[in-house]
Amino acid sequence: MQIGRSEDRLQASLGDVTRLLQKHRVLDALIHRQEGSRRDLLENLQHRQNLAELHARLRTLHPADLAFILEALPLDDRSLVWSQTPTGLKGEVLVEVAEGVRRSLVEELPHAGLVGALRALDADDLAYLKDAVPDDVWHEASRSLDAGDQTFLRTAVAYPEASIGHLMSGEVADVRESGTLQDAIDDLRRRGALPDHTDRLFVVDVRHVLRGAIPLADLLHHDPHAPVAEVMTTDLIAFRPDEPIDAAVKAFERYDLISAPVIDDRGKLLGRLSVDVVMDWVRAEADRRALELAGLRGDEDLFAPVMDSARNRWPWLMVNLLTAFVASRVIGLFEHTIEQLVALATLMPIVASVGGNTGNQTVALVVRGLALDQIQAGNARYLVRKEVFVSLLNGVLWGLLVGLFALAIYRSAPLGLVMSVAVLLNLLVAALVGIGVPLVLQRTGRDPARGSSVLLTFITDSMGFLLFLGLAQVFLL
Amino acid sequence: MQIGRSEDRLQASLGDVTRLLQKHRVLDALIHRQEGSRRDLLENLQHRQNLAELHARLRTLHPADLAFILEALPLDDRSLVWSQTPTGLKGEVLVEVAEGVRRSLVEELPHAGLVGALRALDADDLAYLKDAVPDDVWHEASRSLDAGDQTFLRTAVAYPEASIGHLMSGEVADVRESGTLQDAIDDLRRRGALPDHTDRLFVVDVRHVLRGAIPLADLLHHDPHAPVAEVMTTDLIAFRPDEPIDAAVKAFERYDLISAPVIDDRGKLLGRLSVDVVMDWVRAEADRRALELAGLRGDEDLFAPVMDSARNRWPWLMVNLLTAFVASRVIGLFEHTIEQLVALATLMPIVASVGGNTGNQTVALVVRGLALDQIQAGNARYLVRKEVFVSLLNGVLWGLLVGLFALAIYRSAPLGLVMSVAVLLNLLVAALVGIGVPLVLQRTGRDPARGSSVLLTFITDSMGFLLFLGLAQVFLL
Repeated sequence: MQIGRSEDRLQASLGDVTRLLQKHRVLDALIHRQEGSRRDLLENLQHRQNLAELHARLRTLHPADLAFILEALPLDDRSLVWSQTPTGLKGEVLVEVAEGVRRSLVEELPHAGLVGALRALDADDLAYLKDAVPDDVWHEASRSLDAGDQTFLRTAVAYPEASIGHLMSGEVADVRESGTLQDAIDDLRRRGALPDHTDRLFVVDVRHVLRGAIPLADLLHHDPHAPVAEVMTTDLIAFRPDEPIDAAVKAFERYDLISAPVIDDRGKLLGRLSVDVVMDWVRAEADRRALELAGLRGDEDLFAPVMDSARNRWPWLMVNLLTAFVASRVIGLFEHTIEQLVALATLMPIVASVGGNTGNQTVALVVRGLALDQIQAGNARYLVRKEVFVSLLNGVLWGLLVGLFALAIYRSAPLGLVMSVAVLLNLLVAALVGIGVPLVLQRTGRDPARGSSVLLTFITDSMGFLLFLGLAQVFLL
Repeated sequence: MQIGRSEDRLQASLGDVTRLLQKHRVLDALIHRQEGSRRDLLENLQHRQNLAELHARLRTLHPADLAFILEALPLDDRSLVWSQTPTGLKGEVLVEVAEGVRRSLVEELPHAGLVGALRALDADDLAYLKDAVPDDVWHEASRSLDAGDQTFLRTAVAYPEASIGHLMSGEVADVRESGTLQDAIDDLRRRGALPDHTDRLFVVDVRHVLRGAIPLADLLHHDPHAPVAEVMTTDLIAFRPDEPIDAAVKAFERYDLISAPVIDDRGKLLGRLSVDVVMDWVRAEADRRALELAGLRGDEDLFAPVMDSARNRWPWLMVNLLTAFVASRVIGLFEHTIEQLVALATLMPIVASVGGNTGNQTVALVVRGLALDQIQAGNARYLVRKEVFVSLLNGVLWGLLVGLFALAIYRSAPLGLVMSVAVLLNLLVAALVGIGVPLVLQRTGRDPARGSSVLLTFITDSMGFLLFLGLAQVFLL
């Protein structure tokens, strides 16, 4: 009996592997201290025994657990574990592992090893890995599929990477509309195992056009002599292969689907999308977004080589420096003013920072609203009005507080007043820009989650300096 | 035949509702321009007819679609649609709708209306809504459940909100270990419909201890006379009710589960967790995180009243202002230096900004690594070494670039040099703090995703000003 808690199991596996790696390293170090023939002997004996032990442990792991362990290991250990991973598991591990780590694993396998690993996979998984492996490897591996699977594979990879067609499975349990439930059951028995995540059978007509679906549970409940056409439900959500996977994510979540049919323009059943694929996508996407928000490539590997990591940060650093240079030149315009009243230099970062902060709150709300399709042409104006009111309210309140701070430190009421007004105005700018930037990015076909925050901070920084120093120049000098 | 694309269907529903609302508003305006009895007459006739039309359209919608529409409507329209939502649907809409919007909907219903809405729900959904409705309402509604469900409900709500016990379902299709497959099938027939998302039956012994599981598909395949105990799989992942739902999220994703048993310490089957609940959680969590990263309450409603929205931003604004005040005082220490060389005021934001930017990249990587359990005691040192190297590499490169910028603008080599060194040092600070802050937050039991970014920006800002102005004071004056 093997009923266990998943976390315990996984941590135990990771513990075992690290312990075996540790043993291996300690022995390696000992062996290197020995000399000559004695060293060779030890190396041959112990070294092999250790690796065999590691290999044996890895063989018992679920591919997803192995993928997790590989992701959590520094580069050297990762190579060692990967080299000891049984070939039969390697393909599935490549499917499960995170994108950045996958690249490093693919690079380490020779051509033949990679082909061998991929040969163990079915057509869906091969379609999924299309862009992750060299073209010649992929084609060689896909030739070992049977003719039907090869056709499906060619169809699937022709669709873009994040489309439903690319991610659908060709393994569909379909039954004919014309028979009875018993016919359907007999048919299933003949075929053997059902595809994973089959919660219902899809009903098709002679031309393979989708007509409805029958939940597996209904096959068990109903009179076996009932005609399929009478029992099936016809109210179902189907997808087209060219729809983005995001559409499926929303529908699966909203209608609690386990699987859904994919049909072409004439209604013919092409394949099936199942909840595990959708859920993997949701997780990977959330992960990617978190990194991209900070300006990293979404697939950065925690243990990537130093040079790769350093380079991964350049594009964002570059953008950041450019905007910082511009903000710096804005301040440069007022050097003369600052020279006369150096308190301005002390206070100006506050105005910029408050603007960036509240602006980014607005951006977060709007980006979420757009992602959930909650923002439409009809309510955008309502939203702008609301955010303007919020910013005026907070501007008066917090502007006053900031002004009092300036007054307390520099004992100058005019300086405090200028500070208050600058904060109020910059919050207003932040609200308008915080709504405007994501909307414009979305309308021009870009991802509002990616660029909005940089652009906003750039504007609120520059405007913060400009408003504060400009007002100071006019009213204080 | 109703096979349709989900997005089309949803947008059509939203379109219909907005059109009906528009019609209602136009008529309302017209009616208000009339006077006296004529107005009453019109009001009685047209008004009612309009609302009836809206009511009829709402009745045909899926609760999840209704929830979506309510989320996308400004407050007035939302109230109107909610008041016209059929009582039978209201409970399910409350389950589906986002947290912030749910609060506003609950507030609008009178006591009796709310009880009526909740009475339509099953025990799982009632457990889910426990904290969303007033206690007396909840207890009154739960009294209409049958005795078994009431017992389950009391067990479920005793577990904390984000635990598996709180989110599990009491509807489990279980079969006895001792019978044959045919016995199990007959048993299912007697019970009627299976619970949603039943992909397999859980096998229990006489004391209701979990022994294994049988996929529904296997019931169809195998010889009906085979004993349950022979056909069942015994290698399965089970959860305890006190485990956090996050543990289930990871396991469901890793092992592609549709449903999983929840058992107590003695192995007795308590309930079942299904993939729809897990997926809802993943989506809601990703959503909440995106807002919380910007310092908003995770459940902020896009169309919340102005005052609520403004207040939602205060805690973060307060923190932000405090850190900005401190940074401002750091600059204040060097007022004398800035007075002598005003270029410093122009250049100092660049040093701070570059530090905050790269530090937040490190934070994003570390927070993700922690969330995925990839960072362990064993590899933390490796990570620190790597990030230090990355920051030194980028510090030299980008420090040089920034120094050249300063040189080009102010024609002073010493100023450029000070600038370069300050950037290099601040990147080093950013790397160390970027790793340290999330690790410390995690170790002290806090959520590293929440506070890390503010704390980091605070430190890189203050240190950026301190390093740059301090170096300038020592070497330039």
